[in-house]
Amino acid sequence: MESIRLKELKNHYGEEVVVSGFIDNIRNLQWVQFLVIRDDSGKVQITIEKSEEKNKEMVELVNHLTLESTVKITGTLMEAPKVKLNGMEIIPSKIEVTSHSEDELPFTYKDLSLVNLDTRLDYRFIDLRNESNGFIFKVQSCLVRYMREYLYLHDFTEIHTPKFIGTASESGSDVFEVKYFDRKAYLAQSPQFYKQMAMAAGFNRIFEVAPAFRAENSNTSRHATEFTSFDVEFSYIDSYFDVMKLQEEMIQYAFQKVHDLYGDKIKELYGVEVVVPSVPFPVMKLSDVYQELEERYNYHVDDSEKTDLTTEAERLCYQLSKDKFQHEFLFVIDYPAEKRAFYHMRDKDGKLQGYDLLWRGVEITTGAQREHRYAEIKKAALEKGLDKDVEFYLEFFKYGCPPHGGFGMGVDRLTMLLLGIPSVKETQFLFRGPNRLNP
Amino acid sequence: MESIRLKELKNHYGEEVVVSGFIDNIRNLQWVQFLVIRDDSGKVQITIEKSEEKNKEMVELVNHLTLESTVKITGTLMEAPKVKLNGMEIIPSKIEVTSHSEDELPFTYKDLSLVNLDTRLDYRFIDLRNESNGFIFKVQSCLVRYMREYLYLHDFTEIHTPKFIGTASESGSDVFEVKYFDRKAYLAQSPQFYKQMAMAAGFNRIFEVAPAFRAENSNTSRHATEFTSFDVEFSYIDSYFDVMKLQEEMIQYAFQKVHDLYGDKIKELYGVEVVVPSVPFPVMKLSDVYQELEERYNYHVDDSEKTDLTTEAERLCYQLSKDKFQHEFLFVIDYPAEKRAFYHMRDKDGKLQGYDLLWRGVEITTGAQREHRYAEIKKAALEKGLDKDVEFYLEFFKYGCPPHGGFGMGVDRLTMLLLGIPSVKETQFLFRGPNRLNP
Repeated sequence: MESIRLKELKNHYGEEVVVSGFIDNIRNLQWVQFLVIRDDSGKVQITIEKSEEKNKEMVELVNHLTLESTVKITGTLMEAPKVKLNGMEIIPSKIEVTSHSEDELPFTYKDLSLVNLDTRLDYRFIDLRNESNGFIFKVQSCLVRYMREYLYLHDFTEIHTPKFIGTASESGSDVFEVKYFDRKAYLAQSPQFYKQMAMAAGFNRIFEVAPAFRAENSNTSRHATEFTSFDVEFSYIDSYFDVMKLQEEMIQYAFQKVHDLYGDKIKELYGVEVVVPSVPFPVMKLSDVYQELEERYNYHVDDSEKTDLTTEAERLCYQLSKDKFQHEFLFVIDYPAEKRAFYHMRDKDGKLQGYDLLWRGVEITTGAQREHRYAEIKKAALEKGLDKDVEFYLEFFKYGCPPHGGFGMGVDRLTMLLLGIPSVKETQFLFRGPNRLNP
Repeated sequence: MESIRLKELKNHYGEEVVVSGFIDNIRNLQWVQFLVIRDDSGKVQITIEKSEEKNKEMVELVNHLTLESTVKITGTLMEAPKVKLNGMEIIPSKIEVTSHSEDELPFTYKDLSLVNLDTRLDYRFIDLRNESNGFIFKVQSCLVRYMREYLYLHDFTEIHTPKFIGTASESGSDVFEVKYFDRKAYLAQSPQFYKQMAMAAGFNRIFEVAPAFRAENSNTSRHATEFTSFDVEFSYIDSYFDVMKLQEEMIQYAFQKVHDLYGDKIKELYGVEVVVPSVPFPVMKLSDVYQELEERYNYHVDDSEKTDLTTEAERLCYQLSKDKFQHEFLFVIDYPAEKRAFYHMRDKDGKLQGYDLLWRGVEITTGAQREHRYAEIKKAALEKGLDKDVEFYLEFFKYGCPPHGGFGMGVDRLTMLLLGIPSVKETQFLFRGPNRLNP
């Protein structure tokens, strides 16, 4: 008989059931033993009367049972209004120990308030037994599922671009080097060039969800050497506003699903609301952002810093967007072109055809229309002194390429903001940073 | 006005439409110019009467237009029974050249019969303009989409495990080494250990679709140094037959979708049928397979080779499964335990609790129940002399771990077999092998 998921038990009162899970709690009293078992969907109490002759073997087994061992239990599910845990209990006829927890846990995962984050990451397989920590990944999976679904419904194709690249393109310093037989390879920092190759190949609309690698030796709450990147690119756009429109609609679609499926649970576990954003998202020019930050919040920075948003300005933009637009998101446009990647399009006046998207005080996306014209992209690469490194990439544009644009988002960072969790170290299944390669 | 996808045109007769695409063909006749434009969903003819005064500018533009440039065209869609291409044409009022193909193509992608595969891969962005080549990735996207959907419907969570690993586990020789700041990291050959970590963490059912890296210096049609791996793992199973059941149902579900959505087009482009398999798939013991290959096809190998399927035996299994079971798939069980990974479970008699799945003459999966008991997995690792390398992994089992199992499949290989394409070099968006890192 197959084990029933614990959340499904309520449909099986009075029946013989098989359940499986970890031993979450043991109370061994004078006349009775109570077990609580746990799977990833819930918990249930098992009640064993010690006096009953037929229970003798089970009682003995429970006497030696350790917390966090796993069991498979056959028994009858009874309504039990006095039982605090869901008002039900299982009267077992058979208990099978499927694995034995050998040792005292290295820490109490049920209360992590006093546990150092590094210890938690060292024992991530214990840390994730904490309900809030494990649940992060159900939310993340749901979010990615429905972002994908939105794209499928709009005729996008998912592709898988290589992570091995032959030259350290874009900027050699942040690229990991791999020993590749008798030569060197590098790990892709983003699928940018290959997403665009798909456009040149005539794929109208594509996306990819895959690891990206950045050799940045920095230890902030937002950075990792490896992260999951959600990348979108599509052709035949008229401007970068088409890209913004697609992105805001995709986010709205997926957030609605997360809200409907997990909103209550998220509120309960993390104390945050999943707010489904209205579309269109508000849009501001970078210079207007700084002006309003000054006027509203008395935030002043030197003009030389106004070529990009400072970390503090990003943070304040959350307040600004809420106060001015009653919205959590904010598109910022009109960044100075010279600070941006050479493949972002400039219009004939040199104005950048791209944007950043901010959410809850953090930049979550850079998006743009791309330069798709061979002469222009070649010139732009030359100006950055990149012509040799990106020679293979420039070829993509030589034989016709449709106008196109796209964006990328870090899934871990998005999850962090969605759940109000302080660091991507906790929203990656296994964080990777300059000092962290294990387990 | 947004461009209409060309396959949607049939709903817009008599209307003004905007279409975008590559210039697929130009015929410049005495009185008329015909263009064919192409997007990834279809083609349409554009007809320009040279004599009409208002067309003067367009005629001049077309005189200088090159094949494979991209255009955006505004015009009226007319029924035109004489036009072979879908019986329609667009009478344009405006043609805008959005990109200019600078050069003669390096080869004619419409007929690749004489083009060397390496040349095709060098210019993959041209090669993929070939309809059959580009369409591979729509099928692949569809296949992966619906395998995922089956798993979502069965309460699976998608996770993203790290590709950077701290020790060269399993077998150091086939692992790529990365320069990781002042130390070394390695690239994961599979998410095996981390899938299992999720089980120890109490995630009931998980899957991952991600790149896997193998430093094998071999150049066969089935091998690549990087490929997309579809990996599944789930808890509370009773035996490896539960794993086989899930896998066959997932394949059936996804193949049904591929068949319904793309079956006809696949038949047209690749000349192969998408056969939706019945479940359960047939199962044979390895020894029985060899016996039947002898009896039916007079295939003899030395006993010493019968510890695994030879490449030729794999090939013949397709015939065997068709002849004996009228089925394309075949599960093979009862492999000698000593040849298998230490983490595959053995029963108390030492019998391997795992299987291979063959399809169309190729092994597409190794699946198994895993050893989840700390004492046993530790012993198994020790016997293989792996105890030090996999120390972090053994820890996962120390504090209770449910019985579990799973499998992995190469998405590129699956696509290759589904479409009858000779090599994964053509079913990877960009193939990576020992001698291929570009573009």
